This record gives sequence, C-alpha cells and structure tokens, in this order.
Amino acid sequence: MPASAPPAVAPALSAEARDIIYRNILARRDVRSQFVTTPVDEAVLARILTAAHFAPSVGFMQPWSFVLVRDPAVKQRVHDAFNTANAEAAQMFDGDQREIYKTLRLEGILEAPVNLCITCDRDRAGPVVLGRTHLKAMDLYSTVCAVQNLWLAARSEGLGVGWVSIFRQSAIREILQLPERIMPVAYLCIGHVSHFPDRPELESAGWRARLELKDLLHFDHWGGEEGESAGLTAAVQDAQAQAARGALPT
Amino acid sequence: MPASAPPAVAPALSAEARDIIYRNILARRDVRSQFVTTPVDEAVLARILTAAHFAPSVGFMQPWSFVLVRDPAVKQRVHDAFNTANAEAAQMFDGDQREIYKTLRLEGILEAPVNLCITCDRDRAGPVVLGRTHLKAMDLYSTVCAVQNLWLAARSEGLGVGWVSIFRQSAIREILQLPERIMPVAYLCIGHVSHFPDRPELESAGWRARLELKDLLHFDHWGGEEGESAGLTAAVQDAQAQAARGALPT
Repeated sequence: MPASAPPAVAPALSAEARDIIYRNILARRDVRSQFVTTPVDEAVLARILTAAHFAPSVGFMQPWSFVLVRDPAVKQRVHDAFNTANAEAAQMFDGDQREIYKTLRLEGILEAPVNLCITCDRDRAGPVVLGRTHLKAMDLYSTVCAVQNLWLAARSEGLGVGWVSIFRQSAIREILQLPERIMPVAYLCIGHVSHFPDRPELESAGWRARLELKDLLHFDHWGGEEGESAGLTAAVQDAQAQAARGALPT
Repeated sequence: MPASAPPAVAPALSAEARDIIYRNILARRDVRSQFVTTPVDEAVLARILTAAHFAPSVGFMQPWSFVLVRDPAVKQRVHDAFNTANAEAAQMFDGDQREIYKTLRLEGILEAPVNLCITCDRDRAGPVVLGRTHLKAMDLYSTVCAVQNLWLAARSEGLGVGWVSIFRQSAIREILQLPERIMPVAYLCIGHVSHFPDRPELESAGWRARLELKDLLHFDHWGGEEGESAGLTAAVQDAQAQAARGALPT
C-alpha cells in the first residue's frame, strides 16, 4: 500500500486579498461627526443588509430583524431619547471626566440619512434552540455578529456607521413599537462621510489608550504564561505595531 | 461669493476590493468537522488576534482577553464538559429532532490545533463606562464584535473557526480558572481545514432554512411597510439571490 497522501488543505486568500480584508478591519470607525447629506443608494443598503444576514447564528436561528428609520419625525424622537439619557450619563462622571464627556460628540442620529435598529427575536426558532441550551444570550451574540458584518461591509462601501447605546431601552422600544419578545440590540447611524478619522475618536481625545494586545493573552488558563518558545507574544507585538500603521503584512 | 463646493465624500473601495470583502463574508463557516492537523503559524495567529483587538468597543473599553488552549489535557477537560452538556441538550429535543440532533457534529475541540476562549472583563474600565451607562451588556456586545473580526480574518487566512456554546458556563470558568469578573463569551476551535462547505451545515442537514431577508425588514417602526417606492425590498431580494451564489455584484 502506498503511504496515504497528506490531507488537502483549504488555501488562504492571496496576500493582496488578505491585505484588503485587514486594511478594511483596521480602517473601520465608529462615526459620529462626519456624516454628509449624500443619499445612500438602495443597492448599497441592500448589500450591507445582506452581509448582516449572512452572519453566523446559533442553531441557524437568524434572530435578527432590521428596522430602518428614515422618517425625520421618528429620528427626532430617538434624538430626544438620546438627549435625556445622555444628560443622565454625564452626571455619572466626576470632575474633569464630566467636563470632557460633555464635549464629546456621541451620535449622528439627525445627520445620518439612515438610522437602523438591529433587533433580536428571542423566540425566532421556538423554545429550544440548538447551541442555546446552556447560554441563553447566544441569540444576542449572533445578532452582534450581524452588526459587525454590516459595519465592515459598510466601511468597504465608504459608509460610516455609528453605534449609539445611550438610551433607556424602554424609550427605543416605545418609539419603534417593538413587541415584548424583540430586543433592540444596536441602534446604528449610517451614511456617507467626509472622511474616516485615522484613529478612534476616544483615543484621539485622550479618553482612553489602545491596550497592548500582548498583555491580554493567557495560555491554557487565566494567568498562564507562554513558556519557553514565547513565539506568539513576540508575533503579536509585531502585528500590533504594524496594525497601528493601518495594515498587517501577509 | 461663489456657491459653496459640495462636501468631500470618502470613497468606496474599488469594485474588486469590495468583491473580496463580500466573498469573504459569504464564505465564512462555522466549522466542526473539517479540521486537519496542519499547525497554525504563529504569525497568522498573531494577525487574527490583532484583527480581534481592533474591533469597536463601548467607551474604547477593549474588554476582551484571549485564553489560548493548546495543552491536550486542558482540551480533554473542555471536551468532557461539552459531552456532559450535550447529553443534557439532546434530552431537551423531542422525537425526530432528538434523533437528528444526536447525529450532528457540534464541535472540533480535540481536532482543532488551537482552542481560544475570548472573554469579557466587566470591570476593565472602572465602574462607569462611556456608552455603557444605560445598557450594561455593551461590553459583551463589544467582545462579540472582536469574535466576528477574528472569524472573518481567519477565513481569509484559510483557517476554520467553530464556536462551541454547549457548556455549563461554570465548567468553562473552572477549567480555565477565570476570575469572577471575567465572563467567557466565545469558545472557539481554530485550525486549517480540508475545505469550507458551500452552505452552513445546519442548512444542508435540513435543520432550518435560510430566512428571506425581505421578510425581516421594517420601516420606521416595527411592522412598518416600505410604501410607494418599495426600492429596498426589491434590491434586498436581488442581493440575497446573488449572495446565495457566493458574491454580491458591486
């Protein structure tokens, strides 16, 4: 008998294609201030929604729905709900932080031509869902995977996306008339932008620094060290330094 | 005074680059059965971890950590925890569904050369976090964005990723020695694969069908219809038909 052939292995994309994937991930931003009035083409919106719909989901549950908000009156009510919650939020910070907080722009609800609430239907696939038997939040996590797919697709289309989370959930539920079983997961402002900032705005504003990825690695258990070879820690340091310049050499 | 110039607008990527982005999103799979023994290069692992680290996070909190599991003894304990939970899970389904459930392969813990638990540190940025004042789960959602970034980067590297969620959370906490404030969010099996199936395995197995995206759209409020123009609904039907063939024409 001949020795068995080595198993077939699925190839990586070309170096050029991987470069495009990584640059897009690194160039994605949470946009609040740069929206312009250019309308969003329906075909483009259809593509980014489709990217969301092809996200992974627990038990193939596909628990997401998409509430598109373009009516100025609805946007205004959402904006009012943001203002109420944001005033409450500012009071939770002390001293200098409160002053900085008040100067930050945290939403683009009225300027962005499209607002989109991505929701999670907790009953989409009946009472027992494959893969969700031991962690009920898996449907919410699946919905967030759809958000991130949409966000990355939007970046490739030159569309900015901003995730606004400073709302009382009950206000969003009421404005969008969500049934009880429907959880609002992400309220997104979407539109063309003048530019994408080089770095996250909270990093540029000095609110918080980018952490060192190497400090977030654990091996085999929490607190476990890499041991002799230490190859990954060094590789991660290199990769993060490259990523800070916008690309990851493949 | 001359009329003001139209605002600058950030461009989309080229059609070729967007094609790469969309094909990668559509070709991503939740892998359980196709792992091969080819080792995962440290530089590749560093790149996909860096992609995760450049995910969006609420208040730039970066709440994630990465517990890499390569020790066979630790993997075996995780696999045992899966078996215990999976036996419980099977009992929750009735009749035919239970029989089908038992035939499904739902993890690749021992075969995948790398296991990775992505966790969320709920105290990473102190008691009050910008953007998390009204929705405490935002840190968990940020962590899932990191999972999806990693998953898409891995696909471009030819690496399969499988998310295993059938565990008692207490078992994972104990095996990986996670402190109380650290939530395990995703337990991922990662490795090279023989191939990526064309469709999700649960779809091929007839467990559940792909939903029609057009049925998941709502306009301005839950149940709201598109109205006269109906341009997006039609565009979404076109896009989903194209996506089923693996690409979205840009």
